[in-house]
Amino acid sequence: MNGAAALDRIRIVLTRTSHPGNIGAAARAMKTMGLGHLVLVRPESFPDPVADARASGAIDVLEHARVVGSLEEALHGTVLACALTARRRELATPARWAHEAAIEAAATTAAGEVALVFGNETSGLSNEELALCQVPVMVPANPAYSSLNLGAAVQLMCYELRMAAIAPGEAPYQSGQPASFDEVEGFFGHLEQAMIGSGFHDPANPRRLMARIRRMFGRIRLEREEVGILRGLLAALERKT
Amino acid sequence: MNGAAALDRIRIVLTRTSHPGNIGAAARAMKTMGLGHLVLVRPESFPDPVADARASGAIDVLEHARVVGSLEEALHGTVLACALTARRRELATPARWAHEAAIEAAATTAAGEVALVFGNETSGLSNEELALCQVPVMVPANPAYSSLNLGAAVQLMCYELRMAAIAPGEAPYQSGQPASFDEVEGFFGHLEQAMIGSGFHDPANPRRLMARIRRMFGRIRLEREEVGILRGLLAALERKT
Repeated sequence: MNGAAALDRIRIVLTRTSHPGNIGAAARAMKTMGLGHLVLVRPESFPDPVADARASGAIDVLEHARVVGSLEEALHGTVLACALTARRRELATPARWAHEAAIEAAATTAAGEVALVFGNETSGLSNEELALCQVPVMVPANPAYSSLNLGAAVQLMCYELRMAAIAPGEAPYQSGQPASFDEVEGFFGHLEQAMIGSGFHDPANPRRLMARIRRMFGRIRLEREEVGILRGLLAALERKT
Repeated sequence: MNGAAALDRIRIVLTRTSHPGNIGAAARAMKTMGLGHLVLVRPESFPDPVADARASGAIDVLEHARVVGSLEEALHGTVLACALTARRRELATPARWAHEAAIEAAATTAAGEVALVFGNETSGLSNEELALCQVPVMVPANPAYSSLNLGAAVQLMCYELRMAAIAPGEAPYQSGQPASFDEVEGFFGHLEQAMIGSGFHDPANPRRLMARIRRMFGRIRLEREEVGILRGLLAALERKT
């Protein structure tokens, strides 16, 4: 399963969250990445206006959040539970980095529902909670200060999940129509003639200068309109000289 | 340039930030990923106790932050400036996705200092600010709700920068010493004998059962201690039968 359907099969589980602001931040982080299923295990305060404020435009994620009494209940019906853990522990299961875990989690949605579990802000997940999950996950972080904010950790994981489930596609190239080979060559020919005509360019030793000019304009990746502008400028300058 | 030295050549620039809490969140996000250089262009309120509170253990990043009067000043001495932009614009320069931009930014530290520029929470970067940067960067996000919190955007970019500059290395495998080939084979031999001895296993048709057992234990990647436990259990069961 891939795309938005994969993200729709992933639930974010926050256990024993102390600060309602972090619940709101998590909801916002989820929605920016296309996730919508939030499960709260015994939150200290929920619903809470502080959560609503931090959720900003993701208030619908909070409205649809399920509040449950135990992590077992939160994981009911899942085929995979990944547990975010900040510190290295004596684990029976090998931990995975966030990037690899997200790829596995997204792929596993083909088999059923998947959960990502985040512990309390101060104490993290208890050993009992961790034992209910199959894959411990770590975010690569500064060993001298690895204390990610809960909302930030949710943001990172949801980003990696989106990256794993939905290829972002072509870079968002926002410029105009690229110039064709012939258009660019037409410009180079025009430019060379103009340089010769102006006396700037010695046709007896043409190689080095044109190579530099090609290298420079090659990096820009000229657009059709830009070629038109440059040739118009050249024509104007030629008329003047 | 790579590793921590690369991250040390990257500055995070926040322009015209409205909420001091977001400055604190950015500082914390930076430090968790090993970045330390924060530059603030005309922040609405700084220093501010709200920023200090949100920075948590990253208060040193705030203490060393530079406050400047213009983006030009903030970018002084850089060889590359990447500008985070949430919306698609008519850009002269093609935008890059966060992942690719981080790879380019980390690589460019070999040539000098690099900046990542984040605009105001509501209005983003002005066209004038954007024009001072070479690479517009977009975070892949939910097209229906792409409104990342400023601190969350800084967290994502710093994470991608760390991933680009410092390979996280081997997955943090936290279990004990893996069992050797001979130890695992010794266990399989022991198990087979025990299965035959118990009548569970028909040695006239041994293939399929042992293959399934090998497949199962192969996935577990047994540790030395676990082999000891399993063989101890087998020995105990054999004594009983």
